[in-house]
Amino acid sequence: MVILDQTRLPEEQVELELRTADDLVEAIRALRVRGAPLIGITAAMGLAALGRQAERAGIPRNELIREARDCAARLMAARPTAVNLAWAVKRLERVLGAPTSTDSPGLARRLAEEAEAIRSQDARMCRRIGEHGLALLGGGHRVLTHCNAGVLATGGIGTALAPVYLARERGMSVRVLVGETRPLLQGSRLTAWELGQAGIEVTVLTDGATGALFHLEPPDVVLVGADRIAANGDVANKVGTYSLAILARHHGVPFYVLAPTSTVDLEAETGGDIPIEHRAADEVRRGFGRTTTAEHATVWNPAFDVTPADLVTAVVTEQGICRPPYRSALRDAASSVTEPGG
Amino acid sequence: MVILDQTRLPEEQVELELRTADDLVEAIRALRVRGAPLIGITAAMGLAALGRQAERAGIPRNELIREARDCAARLMAARPTAVNLAWAVKRLERVLGAPTSTDSPGLARRLAEEAEAIRSQDARMCRRIGEHGLALLGGGHRVLTHCNAGVLATGGIGTALAPVYLARERGMSVRVLVGETRPLLQGSRLTAWELGQAGIEVTVLTDGATGALFHLEPPDVVLVGADRIAANGDVANKVGTYSLAILARHHGVPFYVLAPTSTVDLEAETGGDIPIEHRAADEVRRGFGRTTTAEHATVWNPAFDVTPADLVTAVVTEQGICRPPYRSALRDAASSVTEPGG
Repeated sequence: MVILDQTRLPEEQVELELRTADDLVEAIRALRVRGAPLIGITAAMGLAALGRQAERAGIPRNELIREARDCAARLMAARPTAVNLAWAVKRLERVLGAPTSTDSPGLARRLAEEAEAIRSQDARMCRRIGEHGLALLGGGHRVLTHCNAGVLATGGIGTALAPVYLARERGMSVRVLVGETRPLLQGSRLTAWELGQAGIEVTVLTDGATGALFHLEPPDVVLVGADRIAANGDVANKVGTYSLAILARHHGVPFYVLAPTSTVDLEAETGGDIPIEHRAADEVRRGFGRTTTAEHATVWNPAFDVTPADLVTAVVTEQGICRPPYRSALRDAASSVTEPGG
Repeated sequence: MVILDQTRLPEEQVELELRTADDLVEAIRALRVRGAPLIGITAAMGLAALGRQAERAGIPRNELIREARDCAARLMAARPTAVNLAWAVKRLERVLGAPTSTDSPGLARRLAEEAEAIRSQDARMCRRIGEHGLALLGGGHRVLTHCNAGVLATGGIGTALAPVYLARERGMSVRVLVGETRPLLQGSRLTAWELGQAGIEVTVLTDGATGALFHLEPPDVVLVGADRIAANGDVANKVGTYSLAILARHHGVPFYVLAPTSTVDLEAETGGDIPIEHRAADEVRRGFGRTTTAEHATVWNPAFDVTPADLVTAVVTEQGICRPPYRSALRDAASSVTEPGG
């Protein structure tokens, strides 16, 4: 399968062919493909591609199942916080494990169908999230977001950015403000790039400057995605999100989380149950090919933080708008999913 | 005069000779020398050096005064937020303007004496700020700071970091946590480097990760410097400071501002009267020699933000600890300065 290597944006648009399970795991670990929904889709597509290869090579069904399960486990270990990855991988595992009399070619085809179903469902979910989110924007046209929860993070028009794309489609004036999102700069590299492709105005600031923004020119609304939402409404998202939620609360600005129901993990009671991925010190120490931190210093580099539910004005899924208290609302949203497999 | 070019740290320790007024202005504008007290000292030393050069070249006193005043105006325009720069330049201007019968050589010597007085007073003030600040640390040994308000920012052991250096001198256990301070990374490049030189433990995190830090492993105290303090106690400091103040308030962690009384600007009623320097977009767009932001995006790059007085637990100057309400306390501190001109 071929991916756009997001680590090369915005300098270059480089397509990368992933041929092996190792390629797939590396691409997800190195954030060449990232964004909770998109890593789920990519993992599913990748496992389906492994199935096709096994079919062509005449590998027996049992061996294909073993290889795919091994790859699935490595994928989940590569990015432990985003629950969509595990959710998509489990959907493929269900296909692998389904009792059937079909032979290996049939299995490969069914894996591909399931992966395509995940992708197309995600695209539809993005638009539905966008419709619900757009209703919340009101007349507000200055949207602060964080990291990248747009086209580059999903199979469609994004989650947090979906209302922005719909506003643009409908001729509404909209401007997006985004912190650069250190250490890997998904805000300045990716969100600014994709919004530019769509002709949407975007302003980039450093993550530290968001406080000054709230103080001097507060946004009308904060829209962020999520990597995992606990049963009580606590939200794990890209590190830096929690500071924005606190600033939004302090300044009376609504703080909305937009994500598909596949992001809701009812087995995590609270944010404390969500595993937080810590990444390599070199992302901070030498993130740009330069030494930016003294050698002896320790680096603390969590990739995500948890925003407590009480700072979240509403959670928007493809099922609608959940307001506090979140426990019952999220359970209802997650269980009212009508599309096969969710 | 010779400076350590701080833009090259921590990769290289490069000394740079400043020969002309243009060199001096460029070094301050490009942050080769930075930190509110140190740019005041450097400006004073630089003006004194211009005086010596004029003396050697036999330039008449009137012409020296004109050149020095022109240079002083350019220096103040180069970094408008830090009030210490204006304060130091004005001290030198007083020497230039003093009615006297001495000729040009005498004037150059008196400029040099005034510059040296500013430097040595700053070193003594740092230690006194450190003594007062140390009393506030109590048993707390995890100190969160921002940017660089240490040796590299002053003529002594720093302002915000002075209590840390004194704690170390007295064998107390202390660890400093610092956000990298985008866009120019004074936290990860400078604070981490200078604390390492002193054998003090330091942990670097991204600015966006400070929220997660407060959530998971809150610091005992936040210590920051200041570029200008308004009469009501509002504090202008490196952009990102305001977010830390809000996080500290939300988590019940004391937030202290440490700065010499020369940082207090009684003519600025509130933070709204402090000019905020906005810097070039390329610091964000291409800060590491790489294109890190899509071309079409607007960049918003304020160098400072204002923390309202009500978020500041105390202001520590060389005169002691000011508690709210700040107006009378700061006026008393600024007027009880006993050192000449200080």
